[in-house]
Amino acid sequence: MIAVDWGGSSLRAYRLDDDGVVRDRRRAEIGALGCAGQHAQKLDSLFEGWDDDRVVLCGMVGGRGGWREVPYVECPASTEALAAGMVRVDPDGPDLRGRTVHIVPGAIDRHSSPVADVMRGEETQVVGLMHARGLREGVICLPGTHSKWVQVREGSIRSIRTAMTGEVYALLRRDSVLSRLMEPGDEAFDEPAFDAGLRRSRDPGGLLHHLFGVRTQGLLGTLSSAQSPSYLSGLLIGHELGALPTTPRHVHLVANERLAASYARALRAAGIETEIHAEQLAAIGMHALYRASTTNPGSP
Amino acid sequence: MIAVDWGGSSLRAYRLDDDGVVRDRRRAEIGALGCAGQHAQKLDSLFEGWDDDRVVLCGMVGGRGGWREVPYVECPASTEALAAGMVRVDPDGPDLRGRTVHIVPGAIDRHSSPVADVMRGEETQVVGLMHARGLREGVICLPGTHSKWVQVREGSIRSIRTAMTGEVYALLRRDSVLSRLMEPGDEAFDEPAFDAGLRRSRDPGGLLHHLFGVRTQGLLGTLSSAQSPSYLSGLLIGHELGALPTTPRHVHLVANERLAASYARALRAAGIETEIHAEQLAAIGMHALYRASTTNPGSP
Repeated sequence: MIAVDWGGSSLRAYRLDDDGVVRDRRRAEIGALGCAGQHAQKLDSLFEGWDDDRVVLCGMVGGRGGWREVPYVECPASTEALAAGMVRVDPDGPDLRGRTVHIVPGAIDRHSSPVADVMRGEETQVVGLMHARGLREGVICLPGTHSKWVQVREGSIRSIRTAMTGEVYALLRRDSVLSRLMEPGDEAFDEPAFDAGLRRSRDPGGLLHHLFGVRTQGLLGTLSSAQSPSYLSGLLIGHELGALPTTPRHVHLVANERLAASYARALRAAGIETEIHAEQLAAIGMHALYRASTTNPGSP
Repeated sequence: MIAVDWGGSSLRAYRLDDDGVVRDRRRAEIGALGCAGQHAQKLDSLFEGWDDDRVVLCGMVGGRGGWREVPYVECPASTEALAAGMVRVDPDGPDLRGRTVHIVPGAIDRHSSPVADVMRGEETQVVGLMHARGLREGVICLPGTHSKWVQVREGSIRSIRTAMTGEVYALLRRDSVLSRLMEPGDEAFDEPAFDAGLRRSRDPGGLLHHLFGVRTQGLLGTLSSAQSPSYLSGLLIGHELGALPTTPRHVHLVANERLAASYARALRAAGIETEIHAEQLAAIGMHALYRASTTNPGSP
């Protein structure tokens, strides 16, 4: 089968064998939201040479403005419930003919907070982690543009909590008064500066006030232009962790190498054990969901 | 005399008589940071027909990258200390010849928090308020791109505290995932949505998490594209107020009409009395500072 994690700005396609082992992978910078009416055609050319007839998609491709809006599954959301919520799409044109295409639903948590929280795409990574590791209980953090915190209980997604940490970092880093005091381009990760930002997040004063301190320290020369991005990152991640409703003892971290390093450092500083997992879990999750959907009598 | 409040993106010039009454005013969209070597020339053409020989400038024109970087005055900063910190600039070229030009220093607070805080430009509004109203004690809030909270004690600026509320609002409103759910352009102020954002700010969870709730509510249709900007504004202002170290009983609000309405509403909801003052206080403050500098024996 082919599993595709199709987000707002890029897609990752995996070819898996029947045992769920990834045999091949491709990547393209095609966003799921910008190609109305052309989703099948884009996939068709991406799949060239892959003759598998089963295709599973997850991510923004199933969100508003994607290929088809697939309704969210309510928490607690088990693998079976997510599998049953998969929707089959039939491509209109000649592309993808002979293949069956399913889109995985997102998940919604209406009960943990007065305002609902959602995810779309990350649920397959969580399912992948549950299946790859036999996980039935735990706290999972999936940092990124929007950092997702997922609580798994009895093998189901019990709660979802999102923090806009990555997006706020990017906006401040690129377009704010703070970016004027930082060199453009990527900097090396500066551990002491990151730790100073983390520590600052524990002071009273609030994030909006602490952010201005990045500027003041830059003006006064106590923070260099090379240190400021790491300090800002530590400050924001520190605020994200500091606002968690309860402090978990152990966190499963699903992230690329760079983010995993930052979050693991911040979690360890807060006395929380961490275990880091690769992002490829999405493919394993889609395979598990597809298997669940074909063995579940109520499935499409 | 002529008083000029010259910020990063625009300038406001006022012509005052000897009693400090504003007789005329001009405005230009010229930023103080983008015209290296041309500050005198820009002012010269702006002043055409104004023959006053004394000019006082405040704001970013005295900051790094402005005309001349004028050192900050330490808190507690009295009118006399700020006046004594004024620096005279002598234009190189033929422009402004025959006029004396002074730049007002900013103020720095190194003691209220582990990280210093500063302001540059707002100190003249505070001095203006002290002089216009005989104010010697009070809390002053000057909202804007960077919201300044100033404590005045015994006629001096005692502490400074900045929150990046306005800038974070603008970034999120214009360039974030949240802006996709909002109509472009200015919306009418929606009081119920603003109040809902204010209330949400008091929930646990932290700002970074609350921000994502703007998106979820937009997706679920519980917040319309017309309501979302006011909700976001209430959420951010609520977080700014909620993080104040102490809750003042009374606040002097110096702001344009739109911001004054939002902040006054949020302050009243927190049980804080407010008194609104016009922004023109900067001119009165520069006049007072110039008078203090000419009567102070240690002045330039």
